Amino acid sequence: MSTKSWQPFVNSFTKNNQLIRVDFLDQGGSDRLEGNYTHEIQVDLVKALIDHLNLDKVNIVGISYGGEIALEFAIKYKENVDRMVVYNTTSRTSEWLRDIGRGWILAGRTRNPDAYYNVAIPVIYSPIFYQQNIEWMEQRRKVLKPVFSDPEFLDRMERLTNSSEPYDITDKLSEIEAYTLIISAEEDYLTPVKDQELLQRQIKNASWVKIPGAGHASMYEKPLLFMTFCLGFINTADTNYLI
Amino acid sequence: MSTKSWQPFVNSFTKNNQLIRVDFLDQGGSDRLEGNYTHEIQVDLVKALIDHLNLDKVNIVGISYGGEIALEFAIKYKENVDRMVVYNTTSRTSEWLRDIGRGWILAGRTRNPDAYYNVAIPVIYSPIFYQQNIEWMEQRRKVLKPVFSDPEFLDRMERLTNSSEPYDITDKLSEIEAYTLIISAEEDYLTPVKDQELLQRQIKNASWVKIPGAGHASMYEKPLLFMTFCLGFINTADTNYLI
Amino acid sequence: MSTKSWQPFVNSFTKNNQLIRVDFLDQGGSDRLEGNYTHEIQVDLVKALIDHLNLDKVNIVGISYGGEIALEFAIKYKENVDRMVVYNTTSRTSEWLRDIGRGWILAGRTRNPDAYYNVAIPVIYSPIFYQQNIEWMEQRRKVLKPVFSDPEFLDRMERLTNSSEPYDITDKLSEIEAYTLIISAEEDYLTPVKDQELLQRQIKNASWVKIPGAGHASMYEKPLLFMTFCLGFINTADTNYLI
Amino acid sequence: MSTKSWQPFVNSFTKNNQLIRVDFLDQGGSDRLEGNYTHEIQVDLVKALIDHLNLDKVNIVGISYGGEIALEFAIKYKENVDRMVVYNTTSRTSEWLRDIGRGWILAGRTRNPDAYYNVAIPVIYSPIFYQQNIEWMEQRRKVLKPVFSDPEFLDRMERLTNSSEPYDITDKLSEIEAYTLIISAEEDYLTPVKDQELLQRQIKNASWVKIPGAGHASMYEKPLLFMTFCLGFINTADTNYLI
Repeated sequence: MSTKSWQPFVNSFTKNNQLIRVDFLDQGGSDRLEGNYTHEIQVDLVKALIDHLNLDKVNIVGISYGGEIALEFAIKYKENVDRMVVYNTTSRTSEWLRDIGRGWILAGRTRNPDAYYNVAIPVIYSPIFYQQNIEWMEQRRKVLKPVFSDPEFLDRMERLTNSSEPYDITDKLSEIEAYTLIISAEEDYLTPVKDQELLQRQIKNASWVKIPGAGHASMYEKPLLFMTFCLGFINTADTNYLI
Repeated sequence: MSTKSWQPFVNSFTKNNQLIRVDFLDQGGSDRLEGNYTHEIQVDLVKALIDHLNLDKVNIVGISYGGEIALEFAIKYKENVDRMVVYNTTSRTSEWLRDIGRGWILAGRTRNPDAYYNVAIPVIYSPIFYQQNIEWMEQRRKVLKPVFSDPEFLDRMERLTNSSEPYDITDKLSEIEAYTLIISAEEDYLTPVKDQELLQRQIKNASWVKIPGAGHASMYEKPLLFMTFCLGFINTADTNYLI
Repeated sequence: MSTKSWQPFVNSFTKNNQLIRVDFLDQGGSDRLEGNYTHEIQVDLVKALIDHLNLDKVNIVGISYGGEIALEFAIKYKENVDRMVVYNTTSRTSEWLRDIGRGWILAGRTRNPDAYYNVAIPVIYSPIFYQQNIEWMEQRRKVLKPVFSDPEFLDRMERLTNSSEPYDITDKLSEIEAYTLIISAEEDYLTPVKDQELLQRQIKNASWVKIPGAGHASMYEKPLLFMTFCLGFINTADTNYLI
Repeated sequence: MSTKSWQPFVNSFTKNNQLIRVDFLDQGGSDRLEGNYTHEIQVDLVKALIDHLNLDKVNIVGISYGGEIALEFAIKYKENVDRMVVYNTTSRTSEWLRDIGRGWILAGRTRNPDAYYNVAIPVIYSPIFYQQNIEWMEQRRKVLKPVFSDPEFLDRMERLTNSSEPYDITDKLSEIEAYTLIISAEEDYLTPVKDQELLQRQIKNASWVKIPGAGHASMYEKPLLFMTFCLGFINTADTNYLI
């Protein structure tokens, strides 16, 4: 939910490619919004950025919420997308995911950082990672505690969560033309494997991969695979092989 | 968490078998407790009940928390157990599960029934079941709302959740002698499949089955399978087949 | 492929149920056929047997080839079927399975029993079972060697294999009305899990279960589960539970 | 089993990397051998080639038999290996796989190309790929028919198959120091997913990925993923990310 999360990967990304990181509105260093909005404002933000930078075609990597925006972008602005890597993401906010999101919002409204942490954080990691990195997790709790105590941050999160409620682009996935690499994590309990199975069935030029033993935060849990997938898929010379 | 949940199954269970349902302490119609306790009090409650009824060997079916008590019972009172069916359960409260439980407790302390519902309920169903039975789920929310508004109920849940924190019998699983049927649900996001994989590796006479497309509440999601597994495993004449 | 395979289960099956075992034509003790035929002759054999015995409704258990006949029977003679358990089976002979079958036929025509054994037998077991029961497997090779040297047996197998080539009832699965329990084995390399996933999608009253760590011969690999599934599903008083 | 199989990938491999393809002895354009041998001769062939080319450290990509040689090479000549990608491979020839291999040999000895084709080829593809590419498969049968009629080729295959019989390096996997990417295909019925699960448990610096819907020939079935994994893993600047 912040370009800072990508810091460890900057070196590998920038060795042979140009990397542009974006904080969506209400995220990280970007402006806060007010009232209700949908994903569309984020999709158009990406378009404005690309135009501003005078870029023609870009490769897009999106994770979770960012993957949703990536998919919508590839539908609305297909001429701007070359290849796409979408990680731990879904084509719709099911009632199930919506109600989980509402639980996060209600936890946030308590303004109790431990409530927000315990409700939102463990579930995004696989049990095995959480267990094996319990000290790192406790450190992370300390880092996040002041953040999760900040009413402005919690309000931002509430608006971002709300912006996903009406999200459902399942019927439009067949319009995507970009070669798309879809990554599932087998222990993803928020956007489970079946969500990506649906993505790969609907997207024409889809490739699909599963990471065993990782959860929704698979980028963090398996960082070397994250780089492998992004760099490999984007830098391959050919997409079609005459076998 | 209540013998009432078993009502729909009573007819099938009692056709050729005797069914004894138990509310653990702090559950359903049983007495409330005070202060901290561990699973042991529940294990001994089951033993007292069996002795009180002058039963010798029983077959035990336990789900989730009930499965944990069943496993502990089969270790402590092995002479009283014939066969055992454990459903959506685990041999230990990992740090991951512990922190999820603490999130439930903090949600309960808000005394906001929607907070408790949204934090604890959706995650126990598979996304597909939740989606396909959304009206039934909304009905369930209405039924549970007064329950989740009741401070005494929420305090009971907090104590029950706490009673599982120190739970870890992984090292003792090899002592279990009862023929044990272990059931996993592939979309169980609280006691995931890997937990039961560990159970079946450690328990000598274990049989293992997976239910595709069901979550932690698989008994509710796939009731016909629930009866099939319980009745079939308990009523089979032989447990060893000379193939 | 012979009622003898069911011998170890007779005691458990007959304790509370009546068991009728059938050798299809060209199988076990039944008559041999000549020339080409399809499944239909086997389906009608079952019907004739049921009529001969003056039975009205029966529960059917079918494995692999037997599961295919069971599915076809439940379509053609729906009034005669109560509940059905189909094990390691499929709704069609794909080109892939057809070509594997042709390999078996060509191996049989060598009249070399080791060729037939090695081509047809290992693949029907899971690697783990084969490994852990290697002495039992070697014993089985000895038992089967004279059988696999018998030209008449090999000709029967060739005709049976051929009888499945045109098999495809996928489009008729929706006509099945019987409550049907579908069993997959995760290491089934002949009728893989996706075949049963298709069955359960198309059959109205389908329940679906997976056995981890077992192959196409899951009845042999996990005999206690075999009895659990058959007895439990067939003897459950209710099929619908008002949850 | 021939460097020709890699032809479609040469362009992508050589854009930013140097590609060296090797036919093992008794494979493709390399010399034929006589009598019995083990993998060791192939491992030492690779070493001789690297020394001959005055290379220090290489990245190794190996598939199936080639993956086995790669793993053994990384144990015996660890100083020569930088990173490694092993595809659809195993750390040992189980009794199960051995007996399947013996079936191939017996099919080859018939000198009937259809027998060899039907016994050895369908099983290496996933059913879905085989079905969806049935014309391509028929074309392949035509191309392979003269090859599978050639006694010298079949003798080579027999020796290669035999060379794997004693293979078991499971106990030495922990000696591997190279960062290793292990690829499983979910429908691999020769070196099933559990084989790679074992690899990743034993190899220190292992990353593990699964390809859904592909079989043992996953390089052919999902060529874009093949390039993605190889190029991405080998060209990533960092292998450790301080998350």
